[in-house]
Amino acid sequence: MNQLQGKRLIESFLLEDIGSGDLSSRIFSNSETVKGRFVAKAAGVLAGCVVMNWVYDCLGERVHVHFHKRDGEWIRKGDVIATVEGDVATLLTGERVILNLMQRMSGIATMTHQAVDQLGESKTRICDTRKTAPGLRLFDKYAVTCGGGYNHRFGLYDGVMLKDNHIAYAGSISKAVERIREKVGHMVKIEVEVESKAQVKEAVAAEVDIIMLDNFEPEALEMLILLIPDQIVAEASGGITLENLSTFRDCGLDYISLGCLTHSVNALDISFNIKGGNKWIY
Amino acid sequence: MNQLQGKRLIESFLLEDIGSGDLSSRIFSNSETVKGRFVAKAAGVLAGCVVMNWVYDCLGERVHVHFHKRDGEWIRKGDVIATVEGDVATLLTGERVILNLMQRMSGIATMTHQAVDQLGESKTRICDTRKTAPGLRLFDKYAVTCGGGYNHRFGLYDGVMLKDNHIAYAGSISKAVERIREKVGHMVKIEVEVESKAQVKEAVAAEVDIIMLDNFEPEALEMLILLIPDQIVAEASGGITLENLSTFRDCGLDYISLGCLTHSVNALDISFNIKGGNKWIY
Amino acid sequence: MNQLQGKRLIESFLLEDIGSGDLSSRIFSNSETVKGRFVAKAAGVLAGCVVMNWVYDCLGERVHVHFHKRDGEWIRKGDVIATVEGDVATLLTGERVILNLMQRMSGIATMTHQAVDQLGESKTRICDTRKTAPGLRLFDKYAVTCGGGYNHRFGLYDGVMLKDNHIAYAGSISKAVERIREKVGHMVKIEVEVESKAQVKEAVAAEVDIIMLDNFEPEALEMLILLIPDQIVAEASGGITLENLSTFRDCGLDYISLGCLTHSVNALDISFNIKGGNKWIY
Amino acid sequence: MNQLQGKRLIESFLLEDIGSGDLSSRIFSNSETVKGRFVAKAAGVLAGCVVMNWVYDCLGERVHVHFHKRDGEWIRKGDVIATVEGDVATLLTGERVILNLMQRMSGIATMTHQAVDQLGESKTRICDTRKTAPGLRLFDKYAVTCGGGYNHRFGLYDGVMLKDNHIAYAGSISKAVERIREKVGHMVKIEVEVESKAQVKEAVAAEVDIIMLDNFEPEALEMLILLIPDQIVAEASGGITLENLSTFRDCGLDYISLGCLTHSVNALDISFNIKGGNKWIY
Amino acid sequence: MNQLQGKRLIESFLLEDIGSGDLSSRIFSNSETVKGRFVAKAAGVLAGCVVMNWVYDCLGERVHVHFHKRDGEWIRKGDVIATVEGDVATLLTGERVILNLMQRMSGIATMTHQAVDQLGESKTRICDTRKTAPGLRLFDKYAVTCGGGYNHRFGLYDGVMLKDNHIAYAGSISKAVERIREKVGHMVKIEVEVESKAQVKEAVAAEVDIIMLDNFEPEALEMLILLIPDQIVAEASGGITLENLSTFRDCGLDYISLGCLTHSVNALDISFNIKGGNKWIY
Amino acid sequence: MNQLQGKRLIESFLLEDIGSGDLSSRIFSNSETVKGRFVAKAAGVLAGCVVMNWVYDCLGERVHVHFHKRDGEWIRKGDVIATVEGDVATLLTGERVILNLMQRMSGIATMTHQAVDQLGESKTRICDTRKTAPGLRLFDKYAVTCGGGYNHRFGLYDGVMLKDNHIAYAGSISKAVERIREKVGHMVKIEVEVESKAQVKEAVAAEVDIIMLDNFEPEALEMLILLIPDQIVAEASGGITLENLSTFRDCGLDYISLGCLTHSVNALDISFNIKGGNKWIY
Repeated sequence: MNQLQGKRLIESFLLEDIGSGDLSSRIFSNSETVKGRFVAKAAGVLAGCVVMNWVYDCLGERVHVHFHKRDGEWIRKGDVIATVEGDVATLLTGERVILNLMQRMSGIATMTHQAVDQLGESKTRICDTRKTAPGLRLFDKYAVTCGGGYNHRFGLYDGVMLKDNHIAYAGSISKAVERIREKVGHMVKIEVEVESKAQVKEAVAAEVDIIMLDNFEPEALEMLILLIPDQIVAEASGGITLENLSTFRDCGLDYISLGCLTHSVNALDISFNIKGGNKWIY
Repeated sequence: MNQLQGKRLIESFLLEDIGSGDLSSRIFSNSETVKGRFVAKAAGVLAGCVVMNWVYDCLGERVHVHFHKRDGEWIRKGDVIATVEGDVATLLTGERVILNLMQRMSGIATMTHQAVDQLGESKTRICDTRKTAPGLRLFDKYAVTCGGGYNHRFGLYDGVMLKDNHIAYAGSISKAVERIREKVGHMVKIEVEVESKAQVKEAVAAEVDIIMLDNFEPEALEMLILLIPDQIVAEASGGITLENLSTFRDCGLDYISLGCLTHSVNALDISFNIKGGNKWIY
Repeated sequence: MNQLQGKRLIESFLLEDIGSGDLSSRIFSNSETVKGRFVAKAAGVLAGCVVMNWVYDCLGERVHVHFHKRDGEWIRKGDVIATVEGDVATLLTGERVILNLMQRMSGIATMTHQAVDQLGESKTRICDTRKTAPGLRLFDKYAVTCGGGYNHRFGLYDGVMLKDNHIAYAGSISKAVERIREKVGHMVKIEVEVESKAQVKEAVAAEVDIIMLDNFEPEALEMLILLIPDQIVAEASGGITLENLSTFRDCGLDYISLGCLTHSVNALDISFNIKGGNKWIY
Repeated sequence: MNQLQGKRLIESFLLEDIGSGDLSSRIFSNSETVKGRFVAKAAGVLAGCVVMNWVYDCLGERVHVHFHKRDGEWIRKGDVIATVEGDVATLLTGERVILNLMQRMSGIATMTHQAVDQLGESKTRICDTRKTAPGLRLFDKYAVTCGGGYNHRFGLYDGVMLKDNHIAYAGSISKAVERIREKVGHMVKIEVEVESKAQVKEAVAAEVDIIMLDNFEPEALEMLILLIPDQIVAEASGGITLENLSTFRDCGLDYISLGCLTHSVNALDISFNIKGGNKWIY
Repeated sequence: MNQLQGKRLIESFLLEDIGSGDLSSRIFSNSETVKGRFVAKAAGVLAGCVVMNWVYDCLGERVHVHFHKRDGEWIRKGDVIATVEGDVATLLTGERVILNLMQRMSGIATMTHQAVDQLGESKTRICDTRKTAPGLRLFDKYAVTCGGGYNHRFGLYDGVMLKDNHIAYAGSISKAVERIREKVGHMVKIEVEVESKAQVKEAVAAEVDIIMLDNFEPEALEMLILLIPDQIVAEASGGITLENLSTFRDCGLDYISLGCLTHSVNALDISFNIKGGNKWIY
Repeated sequence: MNQLQGKRLIESFLLEDIGSGDLSSRIFSNSETVKGRFVAKAAGVLAGCVVMNWVYDCLGERVHVHFHKRDGEWIRKGDVIATVEGDVATLLTGERVILNLMQRMSGIATMTHQAVDQLGESKTRICDTRKTAPGLRLFDKYAVTCGGGYNHRFGLYDGVMLKDNHIAYAGSISKAVERIREKVGHMVKIEVEVESKAQVKEAVAAEVDIIMLDNFEPEALEMLILLIPDQIVAEASGGITLENLSTFRDCGLDYISLGCLTHSVNALDISFNIKGGNKWIY
C-alpha cells in the first residue's frame, strides 16, 4: 500500500470519528502512559497491521507498537495481535478507527483464504473485483492479497474491460477490440467479457489478453477453456460463491474473480483492552 | 444527509475509481444518449437513491433520472428502481460507484428492517454503533434510518460514552460522571456502560442520560430494567445478533444497538442495464 | 481541541499569510538561532498556548518552546507567556498567525471570565453560541472553556434547537417535539426556544431536555423558572450583555448563553520580541 | 474578492456548522418554498452581500435573492437588506454562516467608516493590517474597502516590511534595504519601520517606497513628515485608536494603519426572519 | 481526460494565479460583455481546447465559447482557434491559465506530430514516458495523443517496468520476472529493460509482455528484433531524438518512447485578444 | 520557497506518480539500505536541491542526503550532485518526481544564466513572467533566481499590470491609472504596458512605478528610455529571445522580462544510480 495515500485516508477517517474532539476523553486530566493490546476474538487471517502505526502517527503522539502477529498469518481466538504503549487518551481515541479498518481487512483476508483453500492444488487463482467499499479500495485490495488472492484492475484507468454494453455499441467483439487498440498503448491489458461459445471464438481471434467467461456452469467452462490458447488468460465470474466454488476447481481456469470478497464482508472480531493497575480491563 | 459533505465524498469515490480516465469508454467516439435502468436482483429495503443524482452531478453531464422506488421502500427481485437517460459514456463510467454504494446502503437498510421486524410490537428501538466502514459513516448511518432504525452518536464528538476504561481510570461511575459533567455543557448526553447490578444502581444514582447494559442475557436485563427510572434510557448491546434478537423483545429496553448492521454488511444485489436498440442489454 | 483538526486549520492559516513565501525574511542569509518571547501587553485570561507548538510544527523547523503561563491562567501586563528558541526566519514568519489567534482566543477567555465573575456564587453557568467567526469555531469554543464557560452545541449536527420558525411550521411545540423525536435517536438533546409563559408550559409538558427562554427580563425569568422541573435545563438568551448580566444572577437559571463572547471579541494585546545581542528588541 | 477562493472558504464554513447534517431541519418533511428577509437591527455600513449567493450556491439549492441594499451603503436599524425565497430547510441551514460572516464584515466596514469620518477632509487614508482573524483575511480586507479604507499588503508574500528585528539583524536600515533589493524584483514595494528621527533620515536616504512611523505622537509626526520627500509614502501606526485618531488628522500623513479594524470587531446586528403564513416570524 | 480530475487541477491553477484577487481587473466597475478570440501565432497541432470550458466554469461566469478548430488539428499562424463572449473581467482573469496550458499542450502535440511524421509509413508508434511536468501528467499525456502518439504507463501503479536496479537486486531477469508475477495479477503488463543480446534472450524466455531495448543503435536494434517473437512488444528508448529518429524507422520496432516530448517542450505561441469598439485590441 | 506550500505540492506530485502503489517495487521483499547518487549528464546551473529532502520526507522514510553541489552552482557533465542512502524501494519510488522537477528547474536556471551572461556588465536585469507551467510557479520562479534572474509579480494578486485591454476600457493611460489608484493601496506597484512614444509620455506623467515597453527594437528603446525619469523602472518585453538579447544590452533598461525562461524549458539531463554490490548500476 502506498503510505502517502494510505495516511491521507487514515487522516480523513480519524477526522470523521473525532470531529471537534473526543468528549469522553476529557475525563483524563493528565497525560498517563498505559499499555493496551489488540486481541483476536475469532479465528481468521490477519490483515492491516500497518493501520495501527498510521493512526498513531496521525494522532501525533508517540505510541510504541509491538506486533506479535503479522499480515497474512492465521490467528486464533485469544491470540494477542499487538501490544501498544502510550498516552491513555490517544489509545482510546484511536481505538475505533483501527478496529473498524482491521476487522474489515481481516474479514476480507479470511474469506479470500477460504476461497483459495477450496481450490486446493488447482492452478486457478482467486482475484477480486471493483466491488469494494467506496473510498476503501486501497485497503480492500491489499487485504485480498493477505488472504492469498490476486488483484484485478484497480479502477477504470489501469486496464480495459469490454462488457456487453461496449460490444453492443461497437457491433462485435472484433470491432470493439480493434477500436480500443487504436486508443490505448502497449501497457494496457484488454479483457473481454463473453457470454457464448461464439463470443469465445471471436475473442480468441481478436487476440485479447484476457477472456472473462461470464455466468457459465463448470461443465460449460471446461469445454470453452479448450478453445482458449495458453497465452490468453481465462477468467470466470458470475454466480460463483464460497458454496459452489469447489465445483469450479478443475475447470482449467487461470482466475476466478469474486465480488463477495469485498462487497459482503464479515468483520473479523478483534478487541482492544487497556491494562488498569495489574490486570487487563474487559 | 448533508449534501455538501455527501457530494465531497462522492467526488473522492469517483476519483478513486476513474483516476486518470475510463479507458474502456474511449470506445465511444461521439456523445450518444441512451437509456439505462437500475434493477433489483434480490428483495430488500432500498436506500441511497440520491447517490445517483450526486454521481451524475459530479461527472458534470446532464443525466435525467426518474425514480420508480424510494428510500425505505421494500423492493422485490426484478423491480425497476430508476430509469436514467444520458450520455452512454457517462452512464457506464458512473455505474460502479453508484452500485457499490447503493448495494451497501440497501444491504444495511435490509438488515436493519429485519431486526426491527423481529421486535414486532415491542417499544424497543434498534440503533446503530460507530462500527461503520471508515469514511462511510454518513451513508451507513443514513441507511440504518431507511431500514427503520435510529442513530446512536455519530462520533466521539457528539455524545459521551463512559466505558470500562474510563470508569476504571476515574475510580467509579459516580466519579467519572462528576468529572465529565465539569467538562461538557448541557447539550451533551452522557451514557455509561455497565456490567453488573451494582453498576446499574451507581449509574442511576449518578443520573446519567443513558445506561448501556453490556453483554447481559434477556432474563438479567428484565430484572435490571426495573432498577432504571423512566427518564433514563435503557440500552442493551453485546452478544445480540439477528438470530437471538427476538429473545430480547420483551425485556423492556428502550434501545438495542447492533454493530453487525454496519460492520458485516451483505450487499443487496442491484444491476444496471443499458438499452441497445430496442432491447435491454444483459 | 482535536489536534488533527487544529493543525489542519493552522496550516491553512499559515498558507494564507505566507503564500509563495515571506519576502522580508530573505534578508536572513544563514540559519541563525535566536531567542524570542511572547509578552502580555494587557491583563486578561490566557488561551491558546498550544497554537505555538502547532505553528512551529507546521513550519517544519525545530523551535524549542518553554511556557511560563498556561491556558486559563490570569496574566498581567508585562508577564512573559513563553520563551522560544529557534531559527530567526522561522520565528518571524510564524509570529503573526500565532499572535492573531492567541490574541483572539485570550480576548474570548477574558470576556468569558468577566461574565462568570459577574455571576458570583450563583449556580448559573455561562455558555457560548454558534455566533463564532467562520472557520474558527474549534478555537473560539475552546477559548470559552479557558475563561470558565461551557460549550453549547458545536453545530447543527450535535443537538436539536427548535426555534420559532420550526415551531410555526409544525403548528405547536408539542407537535414539533413529537416530530423530531421520530427522527433523532437517544443521544441527541432537544432544546426548545420559548417566548411566552404558555410556551414554557407546553415545552415542559413535551418533556424537552432544555428550555431556552428568549429575551425575557430578570423578573419574568424568576417566575417562569418555577414552572420548569429540575430535570429540564433552564437557559436564557437574548438581550443579555456584560453590562446587565448581574441582574440575571439570582434568577435560578442553569445557563446563560452569550453571543457577544465570540461575535464581538476584543483581542488581548500580546507582543513578540526577539533578542538581538544581549537585549530584547521591542 | 476572488470568487473561487471565496466559495472554497464558504464551503469549509458550512461544513464546520452543518457537519453530518442539520438535525433540527429534519422536522421539515417536504420541500416547501418560503420567503425570508435579512433585516438590520443596528445602523452601520453594509458589507458582504455576495456571501448570501455563495452560501446558497454551496448548499446546492436554487434560492432567489433580491438585494435592497448594497455593499458600502449606510443602513439604518430596521432596513431590509435582502429578501430571499427558497426551500425552508435550506434557508434555515444557511442562516447562521451568512449572519456570522456578514455581521463581522459589516462591523469592520462600520468601524472603518468611523475612522475615515474622523479624518474629515484630510488627505490621509485609513488602511488595514495583517491583524485579521486567521482564515478570514479575504473577507476582512474586503470589508475594510467597503468602509472606505484601503488594503495594506495581504500577507508576507506581496510586499516587504522591514521591522526592528530585520534592521537589527542587518546592522542598519541602509544595509537591510540594500540586502533585500538584491533579493526581490521591481514589482515589490519596500516599507521600513522607523522609531527615531535618525532612522527616518536613513530610510529616506535608502529611497524606500514607504516609511512606517511607529508609535509617534501627532506633534512628532508633523515634524518628521517634513523630512520625507513626496515620492515616499508616509504611514503611521501604533497607539492610534478611534478615540485619538482625530488628533492625527493634520499631520500630513498619507496613510494610518489600524489593527483594531480587524482584530477587535463589533459585529453589526443583523437578523433573519421567515414569513409564516402572512406574517414575519420573530 | 477525466473531467473531475481535470477541473480540480484547473481550479488549483487558477488559485495559483489569482490568489486573493485580480488587482488589475478592479478597473472594470460594471460587468460588461465583450468578445475575445484565441489566435495562433505559429503553426502546429492544437491541443487542450476543453481547458477553456473548464477555466470559465471554475470562474463561475457564463462565457460562451465557439470553437473554430479542434484538438489534433493542424493550425496555421493567424488561424482563429476560438471566439468567446463574456464578462470582460472574467475573460482577462482567465486568459493566462488558458494560454499557459494550451500553449504547452499544443507544443507537446506538435512535437509528437513531428516525431510521428518522421516515421512515415513505418508500423512503429511513438509513445511518451513518465518524464512529464509534475502535476501536469493528465494534460501532457493527453496532448501526446492529440499529436498522434500513444501513452506508455501513467505512473508506477498501472504497469510494471523492471529496470537495471530491479534486475540487479533479483539476480537475473528471469528471477525478477518470476518474483513480480507472484505479486501482481493478470491485468498488469510486465516490461523489462534490456541492455544486451543475452538479456533480450532472457526476457524472451521469461515471456514478458514488452521488451524495452535501451540505448541501442539502429543496426543493433534490427538484429535484436529478430529474436523477439510477435506476441512480445518491442520498444526502444534512450538516445533517440527528433534529429536521429528517422534512422530508427525501419528497425521493425513496435514503439519508440521519447522523453523529450514532455520534458523539453516548446510552447506553441497563441494569443488572446479582446474586441474594443469595432476592432480587435492586440 | 515556502516549505509548507512546497511540500504540499510535492505530495500531490508523488500521489500523481505512485497512485495506489509502485508495482515494480514489490520485487523488494525486505527493507534494504543502499546508496544512490544524482549525477549531472550535461552542464548547466543546478536548481532545486531541496526537492530531494521534501520528496523523501513525504515518502516517510529516513533517507540520508549529502549534497556535493548547491543551488545556483554551475555543474559539469559527470558531476555528482548528491549522494543518498536509504531503503532501496523508497529511493526508486521517489526517483522520477525528483528528477522531473530538478531537471526542469535546472533547465530554467541554466537558460536564465545564459540570458544574464549575454547582458555582461550591463545594469539591465533579467526577470521572468507569469508564463510558467500551471501549478509549478513556485518552483519555476525560484529556479529563475538560481540562474541570476529576478522575479516579476507572482500572480494577478501582487501587482497591477495595465495592458492594452485595460487602457482601451478606461479610455487612456492616465484615466486607467487614476482609476486603479482609487482601488489599491500603497503596497501595490503599478506597471503600464506602452506601445508608442506618446504612451510613454502619458505613463511618465501618470507617475506609474514601472513602464513596460512592449515589442520595441533596441534603437527605439534607447530613445524612449531618455523620456523615463530615474525613479520609474523601465522594462522591455516582447520579441526578445536568447538569440537577439545581446542587442538590447546597452539600451539602458532596468529589466528585460523573458517568457521563454519558463514556457519553453529544456530539461537539464540528470540521472540517478543505485550502487549494486561494489559498483554503480547503469
